[in-house]
Amino acid sequence: MPKYAIGVDLGGTNLRVAAVDGHGSLREKVTLSARNSAGRDAVIQEMCQAVASLGARFGKADLSGIGIGVPGVIDLAKGILRESPNLPGWAEYPVKAEIERRLGATVFLENDANAAALGEQWLGAAKGVADTAILTLGTGIGGAVIFGGKIWHGMTGMAGEFGHMTLNPEGPVCKCGNRGCLEEYASATAVVRMARDVGLARGGSTAREVYELALAGNDAANGVFHRVGKALGIAVANLINALNLPLVVVGGGVSEAWDLFAPALFDELRWRSMVYRAAGGATRVTKALLGGDAGIYGAARLAMPKN
Amino acid sequence: MPKYAIGVDLGGTNLRVAAVDGHGSLREKVTLSARNSAGRDAVIQEMCQAVASLGARFGKADLSGIGIGVPGVIDLAKGILRESPNLPGWAEYPVKAEIERRLGATVFLENDANAAALGEQWLGAAKGVADTAILTLGTGIGGAVIFGGKIWHGMTGMAGEFGHMTLNPEGPVCKCGNRGCLEEYASATAVVRMARDVGLARGGSTAREVYELALAGNDAANGVFHRVGKALGIAVANLINALNLPLVVVGGGVSEAWDLFAPALFDELRWRSMVYRAAGGATRVTKALLGGDAGIYGAARLAMPKN
Repeated sequence: MPKYAIGVDLGGTNLRVAAVDGHGSLREKVTLSARNSAGRDAVIQEMCQAVASLGARFGKADLSGIGIGVPGVIDLAKGILRESPNLPGWAEYPVKAEIERRLGATVFLENDANAAALGEQWLGAAKGVADTAILTLGTGIGGAVIFGGKIWHGMTGMAGEFGHMTLNPEGPVCKCGNRGCLEEYASATAVVRMARDVGLARGGSTAREVYELALAGNDAANGVFHRVGKALGIAVANLINALNLPLVVVGGGVSEAWDLFAPALFDELRWRSMVYRAAGGATRVTKALLGGDAGIYGAARLAMPKN
Repeated sequence: MPKYAIGVDLGGTNLRVAAVDGHGSLREKVTLSARNSAGRDAVIQEMCQAVASLGARFGKADLSGIGIGVPGVIDLAKGILRESPNLPGWAEYPVKAEIERRLGATVFLENDANAAALGEQWLGAAKGVADTAILTLGTGIGGAVIFGGKIWHGMTGMAGEFGHMTLNPEGPVCKCGNRGCLEEYASATAVVRMARDVGLARGGSTAREVYELALAGNDAANGVFHRVGKALGIAVANLINALNLPLVVVGGGVSEAWDLFAPALFDELRWRSMVYRAAGGATRVTKALLGGDAGIYGAARLAMPKN
């Protein structure tokens, strides 16, 4: 009976590898620089070394498998990345087969936002809830849909792109080519842009600085998070009207400012979503609980036997 | 082995009852005035008479059951309508139990937009496609989501309210209380309002009249359908970004103007949905095929044995 799995979160900056047991306890976590500049093979080499070292420590016989969360579009059937802007050189590379060959353990790939959602569903804000949507507010905005406890991948593995929901048809141009995407109002990048727009150039060059200014009572900085909340309220209203979900979870770095943007989010949600109102207090919208570790837990969960 | 089912479409204006066989052939259809003014009991009386008469004609032994599509929110577990603005007096009434008692056959209730979606999935535009969303453009805009061949009801049976997706946060006030809902740009009601806004007061007092003016070459009337297409394009882009569906179907009376609004719909969809573009030609957006009979077919299908 396997006693643990290894979860890998392969970000654009960091590579994190952890051993997680079947109860969701993180036994050991290793954080490495992903060094994408050194190239794909160097990253895979480092990942395999870290996995092998954890495997040696906790016992190869007890290892159920390895789950890897990667930023990009995954072809689950083939075990490859189809597209990954943040991992140049990985497209079409047989990630699953190659790591399985090197380590002799079963590998499960998943998109990083989906892995984080699975983590929240296993151990975090969506624990015990079978149907949910999760928005991850980072540099960009990722998302995931879980129906019946499983990730909804969609036809080509790209479901959950809530960040590119049009909120304002004439709004700012988004890097996806559209205008007025949610990502232009509620990502960390958008927080900085909106802060600059209201003259917060100094002390507002990162989303965290804008957050700290807001906490210190700066009205303009608070106005930025009010806009974040309004935008999220519209997006969540659209999701609840369409899918009548019992729960929507908001995670990612920007969600640390939950207390600053949540009032505007709920104000907007209440008047814009008839389904939210009709369901009374039954729909919950809440902050993610696992922070940056959600992806590691979710990746590990992928590699565990399901009941 | 039952050979047919009876499908009922209980609209605000008409009550339609039909015998449909297992191959999807409509054997006989009866259209009655719903006479809601005469009250719930009169409508149920008429419905039961029509069903009994079809049952007598095609044989009670061959009848698998009765499916009823109703406008409103259904409590599937209890077999009642929870809310139905168009059927006053029906809320909390035990529709399923009462009709089963009177007719001695199993009754299946479903929301009318969901029934129409099931019809399109059985015999129409979504035939053979397990995952789809359907928008029904009528006086208002209804919708339905089908995952794995089954209606996605959501937590309280209200999923599929695509008509109340916010397209323009500062747009016209919708009867749901929100501003700028899709319904304010792409329903029959919206077609008439937009026609009036551009001075088409005469000869533009029904959506059909605006349609005929557009067909006759009237630029302002064509502009109205261009706006319909743009609005639908944004809504469909949001749905495809969120769910990466292989198919979105557009039905309801306004969809008869497909040729007038489809070019603007696809123009908008292409630049606003990265998921649509990434999936290449694999995502289809198409017109419903069964017209006003979709709901009858879907209702009948509900009452047939599943393979």
